[in-house]
Amino acid sequence: MELLEEHAAFGGRVRRYRHASQSCAAPMSFSIYLPPQAAQGSLPVLYFLAGLTCTEETFMIKAGAQRYAAEHGILLVAPDTSPRATGTPGEDEDWDFGSGAGFYVDATAAPWSAHYQMYRYVTEELPALVARHFPVDPQRESIFGHSMGGHGALVCALRNPGRYRSVSAFAPVCAPSRSPWGQKAFSRYLGGDEMVWRAYDSVALLREQKASLPILIDQGLQDPFLETELKTRWLEAEVGNKVTLRWQEGYDHSYYFIASFVGEHLAFHARHLR
Amino acid sequence: MELLEEHAAFGGRVRRYRHASQSCAAPMSFSIYLPPQAAQGSLPVLYFLAGLTCTEETFMIKAGAQRYAAEHGILLVAPDTSPRATGTPGEDEDWDFGSGAGFYVDATAAPWSAHYQMYRYVTEELPALVARHFPVDPQRESIFGHSMGGHGALVCALRNPGRYRSVSAFAPVCAPSRSPWGQKAFSRYLGGDEMVWRAYDSVALLREQKASLPILIDQGLQDPFLETELKTRWLEAEVGNKVTLRWQEGYDHSYYFIASFVGEHLAFHARHLR
Repeated sequence: MELLEEHAAFGGRVRRYRHASQSCAAPMSFSIYLPPQAAQGSLPVLYFLAGLTCTEETFMIKAGAQRYAAEHGILLVAPDTSPRATGTPGEDEDWDFGSGAGFYVDATAAPWSAHYQMYRYVTEELPALVARHFPVDPQRESIFGHSMGGHGALVCALRNPGRYRSVSAFAPVCAPSRSPWGQKAFSRYLGGDEMVWRAYDSVALLREQKASLPILIDQGLQDPFLETELKTRWLEAEVGNKVTLRWQEGYDHSYYFIASFVGEHLAFHARHLR
Repeated sequence: MELLEEHAAFGGRVRRYRHASQSCAAPMSFSIYLPPQAAQGSLPVLYFLAGLTCTEETFMIKAGAQRYAAEHGILLVAPDTSPRATGTPGEDEDWDFGSGAGFYVDATAAPWSAHYQMYRYVTEELPALVARHFPVDPQRESIFGHSMGGHGALVCALRNPGRYRSVSAFAPVCAPSRSPWGQKAFSRYLGGDEMVWRAYDSVALLREQKASLPILIDQGLQDPFLETELKTRWLEAEVGNKVTLRWQEGYDHSYYFIASFVGEHLAFHARHLR
């Protein structure tokens, strides 16, 4: 692991690393926040998955979560949203596909399958790496995310019952099989068989969910992507009884929205990670 | 005034505007945070001046101050760090001079004097504009800033006794007359007469200061600019008795440093603005 940068923050440290990812067969970057309590022993860990166009830096810079992580003694980890500069033809052509848009799936279709293995990276390789290098209690993991990363967080938690203590999302893409962003990404990463897509569709997964899991979703009512891309009303109508869904009047899709409620999300996860 | 964007945040609104500035004879941009209390009546206002390369967006995006402004009922205003695209030859050649580097002075030397009138803009034009359009109590103003903007905030407060209730700074350029950034900027904006520069040098102004003023300065001990550019140790040695100067172990020059202490700065200003 190569340390790219380090900054003191709220008595702890924000660090950014690059490492050779086996899953993605490419270098991957992530950020980590070590709260002051990390000096004393192992801590619960909370993963944040970011949205389209974001990097491993976005959440640490814009969300203001470090303050709450320091209060609760929780380690934060934020991976990049895709491998980058893999040489895959077309990876940098679209803002909503390829670089910055891995959609947290394991691609099965060429040429993307060679590097775009974000689901495995986020659920297996990165947690193992974090457990090896940082003072975390691997029995106490939770996950959250924003937009494409809200989708990713829900999928990771719903497909691994018992693995994460809790999951939350800001403005997640709830039903990517039925949204333009999701259909574009899934058809190219996973191929045309829509039955396969269901393994990465939160509404589909929630419909089949057996074991219950604490799930918190915040959704702004002034979010410009709400109707076309996020499909939050479908989630509410179809599986609303399985989640705590909060409609936030006046809020949009930005990190100002995330910053406004990230303290409540940290408190939610802290309750379940204790 | 043209509204460029608006976002809900912590129960209030972040807005970004552009307007035709008379001082700068150019369009200028600023951001404003209206806390929820702005719906009820006029509030105290706190100006933030940003550092080199920053824009009117940087503070609102990275500092996480809205939470505290909402708690205290304080309106925040963050101007851009210079006029831009004025057509002045060389304005975009250097990262530490011209665009993004107005140094909060009224330039007297050609060609900069035509547009680079940031001191007047920040102390007169912008406050008048804010008072005209937003629910502020112009009798309750304070100011703070970072790096070049920490210099700017201190200079604005020290040159206008009684005007600002309090001033604070993160890692300010304390003695620009004696630092490479300051000397480069002052020699080109103000000409070669170093006696003139003293009107924009906080250590010089503090040495001559008559009326006292609440001044809080936070400075990271791991700040890479501390010795060469900021000259904080000179301020401490020469006029340290006139300020509350806090050395922060481990902290650098970044917005992670600002975010870690901005809550204490808001509380400091709130006490004096009450």
